[in-house]
Amino acid sequence: VSVMQTGFAFLEAGSVRSKNTTNIIMKNVLDLFIGAIMYFAIGYSFAYGKPGNAFIGHNYFFATNMDENFTYAGWFFQYVFAATASTIVSGAMAERTEFTTYMVYFTFLTGFVYPVVAHWCWSEVGWLKVGMGENSYVIRTHGLSYIDYAGSGVVHLTGGSAALVGAIALGPRIGRFKPDGTVNDLPGHTVTVAALGGFILFVGFMAFNGGSQLSISNPGDGNVVALSVMNTVLGGASGAIVAMLVYKTTDAIRGEDHYWSLLITINGGLAGMVSMCAGCNDMLPWAAVVIGTIAGLAFMGWHHLMLFCKIDDPLDAVAVHLGGGLAGVLLAPIFVMKGLTSPETQQHVGGIIYGGNYLAFQSFGWNLLGAVAIIGWTVAISTLLFGSMKLLGVLRVSEADELRGLDEIKHGEPAYPIKSYSDQ
Amino acid sequence: VSVMQTGFAFLEAGSVRSKNTTNIIMKNVLDLFIGAIMYFAIGYSFAYGKPGNAFIGHNYFFATNMDENFTYAGWFFQYVFAATASTIVSGAMAERTEFTTYMVYFTFLTGFVYPVVAHWCWSEVGWLKVGMGENSYVIRTHGLSYIDYAGSGVVHLTGGSAALVGAIALGPRIGRFKPDGTVNDLPGHTVTVAALGGFILFVGFMAFNGGSQLSISNPGDGNVVALSVMNTVLGGASGAIVAMLVYKTTDAIRGEDHYWSLLITINGGLAGMVSMCAGCNDMLPWAAVVIGTIAGLAFMGWHHLMLFCKIDDPLDAVAVHLGGGLAGVLLAPIFVMKGLTSPETQQHVGGIIYGGNYLAFQSFGWNLLGAVAIIGWTVAISTLLFGSMKLLGVLRVSEADELRGLDEIKHGEPAYPIKSYSDQ
Amino acid sequence: VSVMQTGFAFLEAGSVRSKNTTNIIMKNVLDLFIGAIMYFAIGYSFAYGKPGNAFIGHNYFFATNMDENFTYAGWFFQYVFAATASTIVSGAMAERTEFTTYMVYFTFLTGFVYPVVAHWCWSEVGWLKVGMGENSYVIRTHGLSYIDYAGSGVVHLTGGSAALVGAIALGPRIGRFKPDGTVNDLPGHTVTVAALGGFILFVGFMAFNGGSQLSISNPGDGNVVALSVMNTVLGGASGAIVAMLVYKTTDAIRGEDHYWSLLITINGGLAGMVSMCAGCNDMLPWAAVVIGTIAGLAFMGWHHLMLFCKIDDPLDAVAVHLGGGLAGVLLAPIFVMKGLTSPETQQHVGGIIYGGNYLAFQSFGWNLLGAVAIIGWTVAISTLLFGSMKLLGVLRVSEADELRGLDEIKHGEPAYPIKSYSDQ
Repeated sequence: VSVMQTGFAFLEAGSVRSKNTTNIIMKNVLDLFIGAIMYFAIGYSFAYGKPGNAFIGHNYFFATNMDENFTYAGWFFQYVFAATASTIVSGAMAERTEFTTYMVYFTFLTGFVYPVVAHWCWSEVGWLKVGMGENSYVIRTHGLSYIDYAGSGVVHLTGGSAALVGAIALGPRIGRFKPDGTVNDLPGHTVTVAALGGFILFVGFMAFNGGSQLSISNPGDGNVVALSVMNTVLGGASGAIVAMLVYKTTDAIRGEDHYWSLLITINGGLAGMVSMCAGCNDMLPWAAVVIGTIAGLAFMGWHHLMLFCKIDDPLDAVAVHLGGGLAGVLLAPIFVMKGLTSPETQQHVGGIIYGGNYLAFQSFGWNLLGAVAIIGWTVAISTLLFGSMKLLGVLRVSEADELRGLDEIKHGEPAYPIKSYSDQ
Repeated sequence: VSVMQTGFAFLEAGSVRSKNTTNIIMKNVLDLFIGAIMYFAIGYSFAYGKPGNAFIGHNYFFATNMDENFTYAGWFFQYVFAATASTIVSGAMAERTEFTTYMVYFTFLTGFVYPVVAHWCWSEVGWLKVGMGENSYVIRTHGLSYIDYAGSGVVHLTGGSAALVGAIALGPRIGRFKPDGTVNDLPGHTVTVAALGGFILFVGFMAFNGGSQLSISNPGDGNVVALSVMNTVLGGASGAIVAMLVYKTTDAIRGEDHYWSLLITINGGLAGMVSMCAGCNDMLPWAAVVIGTIAGLAFMGWHHLMLFCKIDDPLDAVAVHLGGGLAGVLLAPIFVMKGLTSPETQQHVGGIIYGGNYLAFQSFGWNLLGAVAIIGWTVAISTLLFGSMKLLGVLRVSEADELRGLDEIKHGEPAYPIKSYSDQ
Repeated sequence: VSVMQTGFAFLEAGSVRSKNTTNIIMKNVLDLFIGAIMYFAIGYSFAYGKPGNAFIGHNYFFATNMDENFTYAGWFFQYVFAATASTIVSGAMAERTEFTTYMVYFTFLTGFVYPVVAHWCWSEVGWLKVGMGENSYVIRTHGLSYIDYAGSGVVHLTGGSAALVGAIALGPRIGRFKPDGTVNDLPGHTVTVAALGGFILFVGFMAFNGGSQLSISNPGDGNVVALSVMNTVLGGASGAIVAMLVYKTTDAIRGEDHYWSLLITINGGLAGMVSMCAGCNDMLPWAAVVIGTIAGLAFMGWHHLMLFCKIDDPLDAVAVHLGGGLAGVLLAPIFVMKGLTSPETQQHVGGIIYGGNYLAFQSFGWNLLGAVAIIGWTVAISTLLFGSMKLLGVLRVSEADELRGLDEIKHGEPAYPIKSYSDQ
């Protein structure tokens, strides 16, 4: 599953200009490694430390004081989730963020912001998992719970929301918008490498959504794993094809050249797969096609909304992860089908379309509340974090450094040193 | 196993010229995604829909009406096989095929041509699996069946045959053959990326041939998995080394510069692995070395034959998949060893070299018939398909577009946009 | 696990100059394929052939005469280890070694040098495994054994030692050291590809160190697998971060520009993971952090020592594998904790820090002896091998060939043929 990190690294590397390639790969390497240290030190403790309250856990700091509730496999899987949530942010903030500032905010996201969300949704005592106080009567009594099997909300809404705040706080790259307000294309330096990252992510999502069953729920139910994988494929396929067609068609409507865009297709596929994370384990294949289609449309909507608002997101990370994640969290309670593969492990009622009694609407409402809570928490903390960095003047590199590129200045390692090429 | 698609994508991307890179990657992305939708809609239904007749299945359209014979894991595995068979074709037809035409033929191959072959060979009622009519007496009585464990025939002969017809119908790329008829080298734009694809495919074949056991036959027999992987490695190794030596030696004989060609070695290795798909689960390691060696020679023969016939296959896809696949289907019944790892699951007699009684020869004959049937079916349908497209004038792009490259014209995304590179 | 070979191939490809790219990838392809044939023919026989003596095994040549001690899974896993050990050498000897010479020494390393070490340490009768003669009294009686779970010593010390001898025998690349003795940077041609290899290796080490449990010891203990993976991640993270900080800081101390080096960070991470191979299955997570930190420091020390001695290792393979491997073998007996995950399978006492009785010190001594024996054996044979090749004048390519690059001359395949690029 750490395949995901490899995929993000090269999707991002191919999508920036050559002068910032080493920089973005370095960030992805550190996502993996600083993330591991932070999740070892405090992250897992805040997420799953027992005992804990409805808001946060506290135990197992530095993997000490472990008991039978600490499993090494659980730690690893959650660590990968945490790194994924945080790495989304580096995409939206690419090509202009100060490197040391990146290390600070990344540490904070992996060590605190994400673990708290994971605690709410997935730990045995989290308030979204079990409900809280008097209001939890219906939740507890009827086995309702926040539905988010593999993190459409926990991972992708968290990452996408922080990415949105980061991109706004930074402002667009130099030259991204022309003086007249129109968009200036700043293409990544290699489609090949970006597509490689996309392919690795497709494989990673299949493994991720399949593997979540093994780590989070009861192991051994191969049927749930296979259903999850099939739905992930179909959701991604629908998102990709819809995004491709919308891009091709709307361009044609506008009277411009109309293209079959590879990068739009890949991002549409990713948005579709993101939307599958919430309920792919418990949904018929046709429902995956429907949700993936909606996620593909949502991706295109967010893509245009970001450009309209002049927010510069070099990777379209917000459109993919916030757009796809939100679609997933809100549509899962509509389409899940109770007991599809393993009746005894189901904890929630059938979705709205299968009857639509008041419990199904309650379930939808609880997921909506979950989405609002996740976005609210992440946006609030991110605004504090990125806002104070901006006030301190440490968020963004100087104009001169941005124009020259970060690879030489910060890392001393241009990605393609001219002297190492022969004149073949 | 969708690792395979990633491997094909980058083997192909590195093997075309830079101006067609985005185009070939786009095709591979759509192989994955249109393939999924087609296999969900009708492909799996034609292959495994129950009830069905000896020729075709019909049930489970759009994954509805599912019963206990529909398994999600089976769907996923078969879908990957279908996409693999179809993706082979895009390699042989690279750099000159009209994009919308590609989408049509791909849809047809994944949704109909491949599923029918899979039905014949692998579904419980397919005629190659169980025999048909009166002629099936010997087959049924003695437990004979078409031997093709992981698709040397079903996947690679199908893909290779369609690729051959497609390459002939299209004609060679502009400049591929000089006016005097000699070959003009049109190398791919990056050996690095082509080799990356090759490595990913090597890993993919090991997983594929190992994993076939888990999905097609009875799960859990780790010994069969490990034997399959070991044989796949040895078959690939033999094919690679033989192809490398033949290329090095025959060049020397011709008095030219003689080279250790990386791309020939990689393709020889792939041909060796393709030839292992038929019987790697039931064969001693030395037999894998023998078959891989023959497959490596077959690859070199097909490679030269294609050039001699002035058929332009930018990826050598026909030589690898038709050459290697045919070697696999015909040699498996000679070398399989009944009950090597799990006596109770064996359905066929020992190979010709272990005794050679009349049943072994019958088994060989049945596999030969299988190869003829698969090639005949695929060639017939492909000729109809590509022939009518050629008559309609929609098969090949215009000369101007071919010279300029498909990336800018069709996709608006040159793979390496010059403005995104700094002068480092 | 053959993912490892893919990782090495592209780490090396990105770290050489463009003119030697095809050459280094070709070597990695042949590592996979010649390695398979050699390990099939004799390698596995020397390592695990039963019966055998304390020094070497002898049986199962060409996978014949197999009995129940020969498992296909065991063969595959050991083959990957053997190829890994040998591939390390091609990194240190990159850009200047004669190609046919490479094939000879590689054959010898995979077929003989590595298997003997594996026999000593891991076969049931190897002298480091069970002790030998009268001296083995304490070893046998108290269940002491050489501790090296996944090959810090067996794989990485062997590879690193041979790499060191090879790099010394070859001498530095032309232009690597200036006439005044200072270092001249010869950067690899693409950071992107080198980093891709690094990421693949990170994933590979997690799978490798997790999977070792499945193949070498008793299968099925998922807890040991997960602990191994978690420790591998933490060891790598510590090594990477420490190396990054040391490089950044010491540069600053010297008054030079100070950089956040991506390549140093990746190599530090690899050294940390190498050091985890010895004991990651049986060690608390905090111990992994300590050992990884020491391995990161060891890497930086070896890195500077190599430059100081004017030994040219284009990949820093010696610093990573000899440095990290030695740290692993010597630190494991200090930090292992008896019975951490599965009491009944433990064969060795707790480490020195958990009590420190005389058995723990004996265990440390036995691992120290193991390291000395592995290095001694490998250095002796490698010196004979590379020394005689040097005397015969076949070790290194001519100066003209080295300047022009090996891709065109030996392989006829420049990695980036200029005519396949459009002027986009």
